[in-house]
Amino acid sequence: MLLERDILQATGFRNVRDESGTVVGFQLRLRMPSYRGMAASLIDGVSVRIGGILDVPADVPLWTLGGETYTLAQLWDGDDVRWQLDEAATVTVPFEGGLPDGIHEVSIELRLRMSYIPIEHQPSTYRETRRITLTSDRDGGPFRYGVSLYSYMTDFGTVLDLETAFRHVADVGATGIEILGEGHIAGYPHPSTAWLDRWFELLDTYGLEPTNYGSWIDTRLHSSGPRARDLTGVEGAALLQRDLRLAKRLGFRFVRPKIGVVSSDLIPHPAWTESVERSLDLAAELDVTICPEIHSPTPIRHEVVDDYIDLIERTGTAHFGLLLDTGIFQDRPIALKPGELPGQRPAFMDGIAVDPADIADIAKYVVFIQAKFHDIDENLHDLQIPWEPVLRALRDSGYTGYLSSEYEGVRDPWRSIEQIRRQHSLLRRVVAELD
Amino acid sequence: MLLERDILQATGFRNVRDESGTVVGFQLRLRMPSYRGMAASLIDGVSVRIGGILDVPADVPLWTLGGETYTLAQLWDGDDVRWQLDEAATVTVPFEGGLPDGIHEVSIELRLRMSYIPIEHQPSTYRETRRITLTSDRDGGPFRYGVSLYSYMTDFGTVLDLETAFRHVADVGATGIEILGEGHIAGYPHPSTAWLDRWFELLDTYGLEPTNYGSWIDTRLHSSGPRARDLTGVEGAALLQRDLRLAKRLGFRFVRPKIGVVSSDLIPHPAWTESVERSLDLAAELDVTICPEIHSPTPIRHEVVDDYIDLIERTGTAHFGLLLDTGIFQDRPIALKPGELPGQRPAFMDGIAVDPADIADIAKYVVFIQAKFHDIDENLHDLQIPWEPVLRALRDSGYTGYLSSEYEGVRDPWRSIEQIRRQHSLLRRVVAELD
Repeated sequence: MLLERDILQATGFRNVRDESGTVVGFQLRLRMPSYRGMAASLIDGVSVRIGGILDVPADVPLWTLGGETYTLAQLWDGDDVRWQLDEAATVTVPFEGGLPDGIHEVSIELRLRMSYIPIEHQPSTYRETRRITLTSDRDGGPFRYGVSLYSYMTDFGTVLDLETAFRHVADVGATGIEILGEGHIAGYPHPSTAWLDRWFELLDTYGLEPTNYGSWIDTRLHSSGPRARDLTGVEGAALLQRDLRLAKRLGFRFVRPKIGVVSSDLIPHPAWTESVERSLDLAAELDVTICPEIHSPTPIRHEVVDDYIDLIERTGTAHFGLLLDTGIFQDRPIALKPGELPGQRPAFMDGIAVDPADIADIAKYVVFIQAKFHDIDENLHDLQIPWEPVLRALRDSGYTGYLSSEYEGVRDPWRSIEQIRRQHSLLRRVVAELD
Repeated sequence: MLLERDILQATGFRNVRDESGTVVGFQLRLRMPSYRGMAASLIDGVSVRIGGILDVPADVPLWTLGGETYTLAQLWDGDDVRWQLDEAATVTVPFEGGLPDGIHEVSIELRLRMSYIPIEHQPSTYRETRRITLTSDRDGGPFRYGVSLYSYMTDFGTVLDLETAFRHVADVGATGIEILGEGHIAGYPHPSTAWLDRWFELLDTYGLEPTNYGSWIDTRLHSSGPRARDLTGVEGAALLQRDLRLAKRLGFRFVRPKIGVVSSDLIPHPAWTESVERSLDLAAELDVTICPEIHSPTPIRHEVVDDYIDLIERTGTAHFGLLLDTGIFQDRPIALKPGELPGQRPAFMDGIAVDPADIADIAKYVVFIQAKFHDIDENLHDLQIPWEPVLRALRDSGYTGYLSSEYEGVRDPWRSIEQIRRQHSLLRRVVAELD
């Protein structure tokens, strides 16, 4: 388990309720800013300010360490409580009714006594201000909420491990977790028994269910070198079936094969039909649904989508469906990277702006939503995806499945964690306000 | 295990020898830049340029994946080799005689085939240039080389876990590892059996021996609140003895107690003598040496040091000695932080510039060196510590123990890893060039 770099952790910022269910305050998690853990009697308190709302002095917050909760005076009197280096302290601020949903400017001033520093420089004081998102209390129905570990790209394996990812996902109130087989299963395609045990233990500990499993049908697997050749349909089916079996073993109900393409508008390689049709019996046997994605720059009204629907109608399968990636609704440009010029990147980066009303035409085939997004600002506005019409159209179409976050924005370390928190707060707010 | 954020990992950059011991090339480790692992037949090679030395095309380097080494053509023909997301690929460049010791500007252009991206945008190409330090081949005698995990402060627990730290330490050719008991032992002061097993497994896997164990005598443990009081000598002894026992259990031979202070020049709290004297029999029984540090702003010629030596002479103990922190030799200022003004920080940040010749006076009591440093630039120049006179004085004094790195510079994530590599290269170079 790893902590966020800031002292103020985004994950863990939530209202708290008493036994009767009344909101009685809020919590924050703090990373130990020293280079060692220490006896908790060395803590000289933490003041907490929530911009525009409250400002509490350093002796008010309660401290939860090692699973037990203490007042500051109790910490001073105790001998055996420790704030370990690898454990974020949970700080509880009593505040009747709690904080309103959304992003808050949180400031802390944390004081620790260091015996080895001259007294005139004591206590050691750590100040930090950060805008972080409170875990939303809103129900969010009729949809269910999940996160794809794709969201943590580049963070995964450098600042996150699997358990840390589970913790972040569960903390936004999500109930579903989506993975990429070739990305998040150690030892893919043959995970160890120990890894499998760990997978089920994490699902249980964090109260998450497996949703969608991302796989690849790599049609260019052997397209370099003197013996270059295309993937055959039989080979494509073998790849897909390997992932169907593994996904089922991990408890997933959906598998999204990412299929090789042969055109700029993402027409799939012709091997796709044989790969899928040969796998439909297995999918039925396993009760796993194969769902290729409708992904920008392919719109809903496109021959690719028609072909997928044709397969469903032709075979009568109940184990093939459509996955919509909300990136197709993007109607404002993704910010240019430093030094990038608009003409240097594909035009679809400006958004293909599919009309959400088009969802109605294909709604009966849609089995899963990847809630793609790029940037949600400090006012909880998404700068690319128009959630209000998208969520309205989905609700009106009768969709009640998962909205599974796919953060695809700037890859500054740890940024993904807070962006996911913002998206879940935003989605629930928009859903609550739909008329 | 976690990887560095850059595609080009600093750790793993080294010359390689054939069975006869002849240097036949060098190696680099690369992080998979995609968000998934993939079949290795999708690799379209990596070109490598070492500034001013060589430039090799993409089909030349060999690839080591899953412990086996392949040519690019072998990867294209294979079916079962994978570049996993959590495994850095080791790239070997044949180059007779290898690279010279020191920092190199390394550039790579890595090409991966993505089946799901239109062919006109293929292969996906990842370019990166980074100045990184080759693991030094120099022997470094008469000293031994180690690293304190203090060096990874803030990185530890956010971008490094224990095994990752071991890997970085071992990769610079160090043989010793130093820890802080309250920082790096999970569950301190009662690590689980599983943690202890893991500790010994890591020592064995990475060929490292435990050197010095940092502990604290927190004289201000109960100095806040209405029942504020000082730590007694008996209590101080109990803290020290807890750490002596735990250090011994982990295989350490030295324990550095960081003792509370009562003055600006770091005069230790008077409880120190009783704390230590009550612990000398235990130290002898365990054969662990207690060694408080001489740390800036305390110079060598100071009553603190005289008092420590007096204890040795008075008791005749062979289990108490001095630890020198090389920060006392700092003769140029530490760079100001953004917005910091010189008058706002203690004067010793500019360096107290102890004369290395002073080492001779106390040499017979010195048992351990913490090789404190702050910033080594891209030309392998230390900007604060004058290593040539320091290492000369240490050598001339007859010291043959550890130089244990303590990086104390800017805490940008991952910076510590490359700074440690620079220091070990620099120390070995300076030692080799002493006349």
